[in-house]
Amino acid sequence: MSDKVKRTDVNTLGEFGLIDHLTKTNEAKHPSTLLGVGDDAAVLDYGGKPIVVSTDMLLEGIHFDLMYCPLKHLGYKSVAVNISDICAMNALPRQITVSIAISNRFSVEALDQLYEGIYTACRNYDVDLVGGDTNSNLKGLVISITALGTNQKEKLTYRSGAKPGDILCVTGDLGAAYLGLQILEREKQLWQSNPAIQPDLEDQAYLIGRQLKPEARTDMVKLFDKAGLIPTSMIDISDGLASEVLHICKASGTGALVEEAKVPLKDEAQLMALKFKLDPITCALSGGEDYELLFTADPKDLPIIRTMPGIFIIGEMTDANQGVNLQTVNGNIHEITAQGWKHVG
Amino acid sequence: MSDKVKRTDVNTLGEFGLIDHLTKTNEAKHPSTLLGVGDDAAVLDYGGKPIVVSTDMLLEGIHFDLMYCPLKHLGYKSVAVNISDICAMNALPRQITVSIAISNRFSVEALDQLYEGIYTACRNYDVDLVGGDTNSNLKGLVISITALGTNQKEKLTYRSGAKPGDILCVTGDLGAAYLGLQILEREKQLWQSNPAIQPDLEDQAYLIGRQLKPEARTDMVKLFDKAGLIPTSMIDISDGLASEVLHICKASGTGALVEEAKVPLKDEAQLMALKFKLDPITCALSGGEDYELLFTADPKDLPIIRTMPGIFIIGEMTDANQGVNLQTVNGNIHEITAQGWKHVG
Repeated sequence: MSDKVKRTDVNTLGEFGLIDHLTKTNEAKHPSTLLGVGDDAAVLDYGGKPIVVSTDMLLEGIHFDLMYCPLKHLGYKSVAVNISDICAMNALPRQITVSIAISNRFSVEALDQLYEGIYTACRNYDVDLVGGDTNSNLKGLVISITALGTNQKEKLTYRSGAKPGDILCVTGDLGAAYLGLQILEREKQLWQSNPAIQPDLEDQAYLIGRQLKPEARTDMVKLFDKAGLIPTSMIDISDGLASEVLHICKASGTGALVEEAKVPLKDEAQLMALKFKLDPITCALSGGEDYELLFTADPKDLPIIRTMPGIFIIGEMTDANQGVNLQTVNGNIHEITAQGWKHVG
Repeated sequence: MSDKVKRTDVNTLGEFGLIDHLTKTNEAKHPSTLLGVGDDAAVLDYGGKPIVVSTDMLLEGIHFDLMYCPLKHLGYKSVAVNISDICAMNALPRQITVSIAISNRFSVEALDQLYEGIYTACRNYDVDLVGGDTNSNLKGLVISITALGTNQKEKLTYRSGAKPGDILCVTGDLGAAYLGLQILEREKQLWQSNPAIQPDLEDQAYLIGRQLKPEARTDMVKLFDKAGLIPTSMIDISDGLASEVLHICKASGTGALVEEAKVPLKDEAQLMALKFKLDPITCALSGGEDYELLFTADPKDLPIIRTMPGIFIIGEMTDANQGVNLQTVNGNIHEITAQGWKHVG
């Protein structure tokens, strides 16, 4: 026996490794727990419609910077990113709880701004704010939201339902939120070095809007229902296309082939990526915060999907042994990794 | 129009005033929202058994001090205090989600300790951990937990159901958690002034245990059910007896008379209060963190209550115009305020 206490840095595991480590012995025992840890949301059964529950915490200095993120936008975004997880289960949100911690540098008027954004999101997404907790904090703002929603049980989608041959789709353009962030960060740094400089946002309202005021795609969940489409698997794009494709492949036991040429990027995003000397596809793969839905569908549903506006088919699911790959516009095949993609062979 | 931005300090409103302010325009619109903001938990209806939802955030430096709060106890307590809110609705917990934010001073081994406490609480209270969020933080530890539970709809209890003439009861002794905290704080300060001093916890395992490892009274919810008692109103004692009695009176539109002589305090708590030159009843009224249940019952249920072990009758509900008062052991009447009580007349 040694007195020395072992100390493993959490960074050695990474976020997903840490979650796996902390939940490796976790086991759901209640019959009312239909699905526990491991998807965008948990699914519970209290005898009526299934209850879909998801929670997210946003921290100042980690997830947002109040230097360029207005409090009203922050309130809206905090709700939207939680509801996005409900949408990823093909469910519609009904209620949220909102807990906050604030230091005394926040005034009542500042909180009013934050809650104006929260209530605006509640109205737009048709959810009730039903509870929460209000705390002091020594430093910084913390927002923790839990969202609850539902859909018919047979319509709920999981990360695990994709099969080889399924088509891979996304509900909107990618990379813009990340490029919006790059502009805001650049202007912040310029301003910090010289406060006399006025920020130049280059009229990039679209890119900056995608970063500061993302929308959860409740409209898409309604459209799926109307069109009669039940995706075979679904996830929302919070960490970037690469990370989310890998999550679906891991949970479903499949591979995937993403075609670079089909990944939707707006012209503004393409141009801004080049201006920042970034590869546009890398912004889509690794940028994150687009909050579009990534889903797979049975190829027999292709006729339905073709009638649905705003759906982009970006590839297909393959056997697991074929790996998770990107086919570039030049026809090269690269392995997709959590960081984006790397050259193989 | 003035360019000057109005700035109201949040402390001018107080916690409950701030919550009232931030939720004054909030309105639940979904038919599935049976009860929104304003009780220990929200109550939702998804077509089966009612869903009781509560959320609490715990912050390092505000709610806990890692200098004397072991991480395993902290994990346990974080779950217990959330489940206590579910109990306050006369419901039993089924699931929790746990979100944390940690700075890099926390090792994987430290988190293992925290989660050991969380999982121990899950086993003891028979709940499943079904989701959460793991985040980096610049400084300090944040834990945000949401608990879900249920009971038959007609058995749920609210703060608002008390009537004049109802008896007022509590499920256990009060003040001990606060006195445990006083010992821990005193030893911390001694240690900070001289690290060579060994902390002297005076064998006060009971008081310190009440502070560091409180229990949620799921056993009492089960006992109510077995005995056939449905309280007319209920709340858990997190902020102190005074604050909770006032909450019930405000929500129910009643007054109350609490008899000092009947408020249960353990001998250890009485003695330690005197040692700290504190009035023992003030520790019970204002100390908080006892996590006992405070409830009211119809006087016709008195025969049932007399058969139930561990229930203390501490007073009765009165008409609102009689106010919320404490009758001291000397027979004097004092008005109960959020801070404890004050001399009247």
